[in-house]
Amino acid sequence: MSDSPTAPFLAACRRQPVDHTPVWFMRQAGRALPEYWATRAPGSILDTIIQPDLAAEITLQPIRRYGVDAAILFSDIVVPIWATGFGVDIVPGRGPVVEEPVRSAADLDRLRSLDPEGDTGFVLETVRILKRELPASVPLIGFAGAPFTVSSYLVEGGPSRDFLKVKTLMHTDPATWERLVEHLAQLAIDSVTSQIAAGVDAVQLFDSWAGALSPADYERFALPATKRVLDAVSALGVPSILFGVGTGELLGLMSSAGPDVVGVDWRVPLDVARARVGGNRAVQGNLDPAACFAPFDVVAEQTRAVLECAGTEPGHIFNLGHGVLPETDPGILGAVVELVHAEGRAGVGA
Amino acid sequence: MSDSPTAPFLAACRRQPVDHTPVWFMRQAGRALPEYWATRAPGSILDTIIQPDLAAEITLQPIRRYGVDAAILFSDIVVPIWATGFGVDIVPGRGPVVEEPVRSAADLDRLRSLDPEGDTGFVLETVRILKRELPASVPLIGFAGAPFTVSSYLVEGGPSRDFLKVKTLMHTDPATWERLVEHLAQLAIDSVTSQIAAGVDAVQLFDSWAGALSPADYERFALPATKRVLDAVSALGVPSILFGVGTGELLGLMSSAGPDVVGVDWRVPLDVARARVGGNRAVQGNLDPAACFAPFDVVAEQTRAVLECAGTEPGHIFNLGHGVLPETDPGILGAVVELVHAEGRAGVGA
Repeated sequence: MSDSPTAPFLAACRRQPVDHTPVWFMRQAGRALPEYWATRAPGSILDTIIQPDLAAEITLQPIRRYGVDAAILFSDIVVPIWATGFGVDIVPGRGPVVEEPVRSAADLDRLRSLDPEGDTGFVLETVRILKRELPASVPLIGFAGAPFTVSSYLVEGGPSRDFLKVKTLMHTDPATWERLVEHLAQLAIDSVTSQIAAGVDAVQLFDSWAGALSPADYERFALPATKRVLDAVSALGVPSILFGVGTGELLGLMSSAGPDVVGVDWRVPLDVARARVGGNRAVQGNLDPAACFAPFDVVAEQTRAVLECAGTEPGHIFNLGHGVLPETDPGILGAVVELVHAEGRAGVGA
Repeated sequence: MSDSPTAPFLAACRRQPVDHTPVWFMRQAGRALPEYWATRAPGSILDTIIQPDLAAEITLQPIRRYGVDAAILFSDIVVPIWATGFGVDIVPGRGPVVEEPVRSAADLDRLRSLDPEGDTGFVLETVRILKRELPASVPLIGFAGAPFTVSSYLVEGGPSRDFLKVKTLMHTDPATWERLVEHLAQLAIDSVTSQIAAGVDAVQLFDSWAGALSPADYERFALPATKRVLDAVSALGVPSILFGVGTGELLGLMSSAGPDVVGVDWRVPLDVARARVGGNRAVQGNLDPAACFAPFDVVAEQTRAVLECAGTEPGHIFNLGHGVLPETDPGILGAVVELVHAEGRAGVGA
């Protein structure tokens, strides 16, 4: 935190007035940028993440190119569990793959707690480099995976379409389930606490797959552990964002978990989302990442529709409704940033 | 249609009183049943669908086993487009795969209209066999794919996660898009009209992937062609069901397309769904298919929660929120049917 005027991103997190609507893009660093391919190490993405100079450079690339209002640490939600020695790899084109998935209580014996400096010192070093390199007007977002979403990889063994194994575990053996998500909550807390100590200005909790759950299942099996993580971030005075895909029916529950900002995908217009999350939360979103492949006049029309639904009340951070798709034309994203800065009105001049 | 008292399934479609809550399961015929594996032909599922004796037998198997209140024709939403000679195969474990996807206006030259008896006589013969074999209390549901969902296979070339190509086509070349979905609407109309003439008692329109669209895109690019199909079914006096996954924000728009019943996945509690679709539509759903893998006391609890949210107003057809998963224990589904028949209250004794 600096003495300079509050950066627009942080002001919007707090539902304070801004001089322009802040914008950043989930996965802004990475596969859509040619300079990323020129920088990253060969092999798994983990081989790049563990090199602070490369991870910091990749984090900075979209700041230079797009002029976005926040940087997000180049890392992955499975880094803490991987760093504690639980066999995970990130397979290109597929995602995280777990060697020996969690199927029963006995598998929990393989979990161990995180020593942030010893296990993930490379993350903290990346944060320290970035805090030196980033302009004061561009805050750095740290992050963690929410317990449900990380557990879905650990139990399914990889990305899943129907989340059958993870739902079966929670329904069949709720005691083991609770031990698992409580462990993952503590892992997330230890990770984000260390990131905050190293200098990140905000934390996003990715519960990307929470939308696979019915509201009743989310409330019982995912919300309590998520709330623990968000409470820990809050206690450290740092704003938090809780994001998932397909979470229309969960927005009220997600809001009750206590984030400052609720991330919304493109399925829910932001005026509807604002009503569901309540007046005491900011919203983040929500241009369809797949809409960025049209000619710019169409992208501009869709961007303006997002700004229109966001309204004039303070507390809107423009973003995509999910991560930047790898095939995205960076030029389009740059033009979206300009448009949002010029025309966004939520809390502007309030 | 017979002179016997209206079957509970058809009564519920019309929001009339029933003596018990009707129940059927999407994909009730097929991979979860050992008798299916004993009956089906080797090779692609299309090799079984084109044999009316096999398709009829497979359709009847869940009626015998579960005592469900409706049969659904064993076929596939890509059958009409496949039968018109557009190269499509259904690859086990993957789904429909299209040899030469639609990418531009020139590709539309390869589409041709459907001669229902000549191209899909096997479907109509299956319907005729089933109308002889099924008890009068068990109506037969015919079906088609909604234009958007079928187009998504044709444009993407197969199942998709982000629907990037199909969204890009609609945004980039709306004239070609409109020609494509209008063609697919006519194909669906010709198919369901012939199914109705052959004897089906109701029609479900599967817009399985509509939930990938924002409400604004759904309204502009998917709804009009869907409405055309539903209007055609309505004009023939047969009740219609419109179903999709992840459609929470679309339920009002789907209702405005004119189905008698709106299918709802497990993400939206049925009381919320009823409010969104309005009082002039029935609802169908919505037990999470992945919840069927728990011990029966947990499944029973979740089933009762669905019945509770469905309330006492007429117009609830119990179903899963998506298709039966292949690994499902048929014994659990049989027990769900018994529970719904015993405890469902929507329109019962009204």
